Amino acid sequence: MTGIDDLPIREELRGKSPYGAPQLDVPVRLNTNENPYPLPEALVARIAERVTEAARDLNRYPDRDAVELRTELARYLTRTAGHEVGVANVWAANGSNEVLQQLLQTFGGPGRTAIGFEPSYSMHALISRGTGTGWISGPRNADFTIDVDAARAAIAEHRPHVVFITSPNNPTGTAVEADTVLALYEAAQAAGPSIVVVDEAYGEFSHRPSLLPLIENRPQLILSRTMSKAFGAAGLRLGYLAAHPAVVDAVQLVRLPYHLSAVTQATALAALEHTDTLLGYVEALKAERDRLVSELRSIGCEVTDSDANFVQFGRFEDAHAAWQSLLDRGVLVRDNGVPGWLRVTAGTPTENDAFLDAVRDLMKEKSA
Amino acid sequence: MTGIDDLPIREELRGKSPYGAPQLDVPVRLNTNENPYPLPEALVARIAERVTEAARDLNRYPDRDAVELRTELARYLTRTAGHEVGVANVWAANGSNEVLQQLLQTFGGPGRTAIGFEPSYSMHALISRGTGTGWISGPRNADFTIDVDAARAAIAEHRPHVVFITSPNNPTGTAVEADTVLALYEAAQAAGPSIVVVDEAYGEFSHRPSLLPLIENRPQLILSRTMSKAFGAAGLRLGYLAAHPAVVDAVQLVRLPYHLSAVTQATALAALEHTDTLLGYVEALKAERDRLVSELRSIGCEVTDSDANFVQFGRFEDAHAAWQSLLDRGVLVRDNGVPGWLRVTAGTPTENDAFLDAVRDLMKEKSA
Repeated sequence: MTGIDDLPIREELRGKSPYGAPQLDVPVRLNTNENPYPLPEALVARIAERVTEAARDLNRYPDRDAVELRTELARYLTRTAGHEVGVANVWAANGSNEVLQQLLQTFGGPGRTAIGFEPSYSMHALISRGTGTGWISGPRNADFTIDVDAARAAIAEHRPHVVFITSPNNPTGTAVEADTVLALYEAAQAAGPSIVVVDEAYGEFSHRPSLLPLIENRPQLILSRTMSKAFGAAGLRLGYLAAHPAVVDAVQLVRLPYHLSAVTQATALAALEHTDTLLGYVEALKAERDRLVSELRSIGCEVTDSDANFVQFGRFEDAHAAWQSLLDRGVLVRDNGVPGWLRVTAGTPTENDAFLDAVRDLMKEKSA
Repeated sequence: MTGIDDLPIREELRGKSPYGAPQLDVPVRLNTNENPYPLPEALVARIAERVTEAARDLNRYPDRDAVELRTELARYLTRTAGHEVGVANVWAANGSNEVLQQLLQTFGGPGRTAIGFEPSYSMHALISRGTGTGWISGPRNADFTIDVDAARAAIAEHRPHVVFITSPNNPTGTAVEADTVLALYEAAQAAGPSIVVVDEAYGEFSHRPSLLPLIENRPQLILSRTMSKAFGAAGLRLGYLAAHPAVVDAVQLVRLPYHLSAVTQATALAALEHTDTLLGYVEALKAERDRLVSELRSIGCEVTDSDANFVQFGRFEDAHAAWQSLLDRGVLVRDNGVPGWLRVTAGTPTENDAFLDAVRDLMKEKSA
């Protein structure tokens, strides 16, 4: 039987497995940082209207430049992220993964390198490899914040072409201070010049303001965002970036033409019409996230400060065994491979109660 | 003012322009091989139903493996393309461009090369470059068919890792004989082994049967397809491939996780329910295509044999001037940069009449 290894695939892919969290059918799924609140029915109806309109023209290619959608995304950022941007500052693609892939095709690629401070969003490394970009794993402090001096030294040493900063960081949860971003940006420009990508996928859940204002007068600083989390639209696959207009021009040199379907554009536009309702859910999730942090601490867990819709908790001698114990109790969380730690998504109050009960059981067992 | 050239983009991107046909607002647009028939209202309504259902679960990530959609695509191929395939043989992505990009990331990439026989679909070269794959431009006969001996020699000389064969070829229109594909496949395996990608984006419009049966016992042969043309769904961006299951396993090593949105999957499934109606439009377009060929010849144009929903016609001393003359008469066709030739998409009978009238004017002018 012919298998992958009988095919002339690239050598670095041999023995690799596809990326993705286990998809298991359990009562409480808190493993992929999805928003637990389904879209309100009024929005579902609006999506149907918008998609119906788009479907009547589906025999034609979509707007290649997604002008209406980018205009509305810019309006949303201007209103919520403390800095005025316009359509020329914004670019959108199929999930922030595709945005990042386009950035790496433009600014990374063969013969170039990217750095991230790990543990962080593992797709940064994977998409780097997928685009032929060399990957450098940078350091963090023991509390998972960025060690600014060590990070600056790593940038000076390796002179990477792309620097990833995830804020709030995934899977650890903590937001990055603006001063840290500025220090790394300066270091990257001194070594490079190189592009700094601030991945704010969880930005709306943060205690701190967005880092968007930092793009002003810094054409090498790019903010990446997604509608998967705050907009409760993981199934939509809509990611976007905000940056200097020259960056938006540059990614168009590598984007696949007509990459963003007419139904995706229509659905995203409908969701943006319901921003206020969706941001109400974000507020509820922030309260639940804060409750998870304080209850986990009162149970006796260590918890990393969280600005996201998830919480990193520990520490376990054997995190994978703890993950399995929770799963045996019907609660699926994420083992991101950070030794001693697990990650739980903030779900509905009921889901979070079920999770907390399972952790209490686990901790009793542990201390017994 | 900061521009692209002030950014640290890859050197090979400097001075390049984004790919894409001019989007001009004229009465008769026959330039991008779109299907001129809007989806029937019953299908539009079914899309709204399916998308409504998907939208109620949009806070969750989509089926990462698109199992239902791939199953239905396999059923469609089995029924229409003369060879039985199942879900394990089929993979889908955002347009065949993304399918091809994933194939090049898996089998091409830095240090590897791909060959195509030009003129052909220009995205093969562009996506190769975008994935760091070296591009080799192979030869064609004067009548735009593949010169089998010269192609075999080019493969033996360059030992490319990926061979592109477009059938029907774009922009010239002619389908490739199975014997030619087999000869190049043998040459590629002798030189390689290398992957052979048969791009059948316009396969449903051909006078000849699909090349799908050739994948049997040839794990290095991959067929690429799209719903943009025959399904009248260019706005949907749904491309797919059929191949040995090992190929489907292999592309999952490079695909971005959750690349295909829930709304895209829902819309494509709705369209597949209406296959018979849509294939009826294909028959109408084939008749119009044949009429375009014969009328253009009777007007005195040279025309390449067409198996697609478009026709290559000429020859003009200055093809771009001819393109402009037709545009001045309200008819937008495509100048693909093939010296002496232009390409026209088969539109509705009314659009085709307008086009033929414009060409008659042009030919009178020419002979006057």
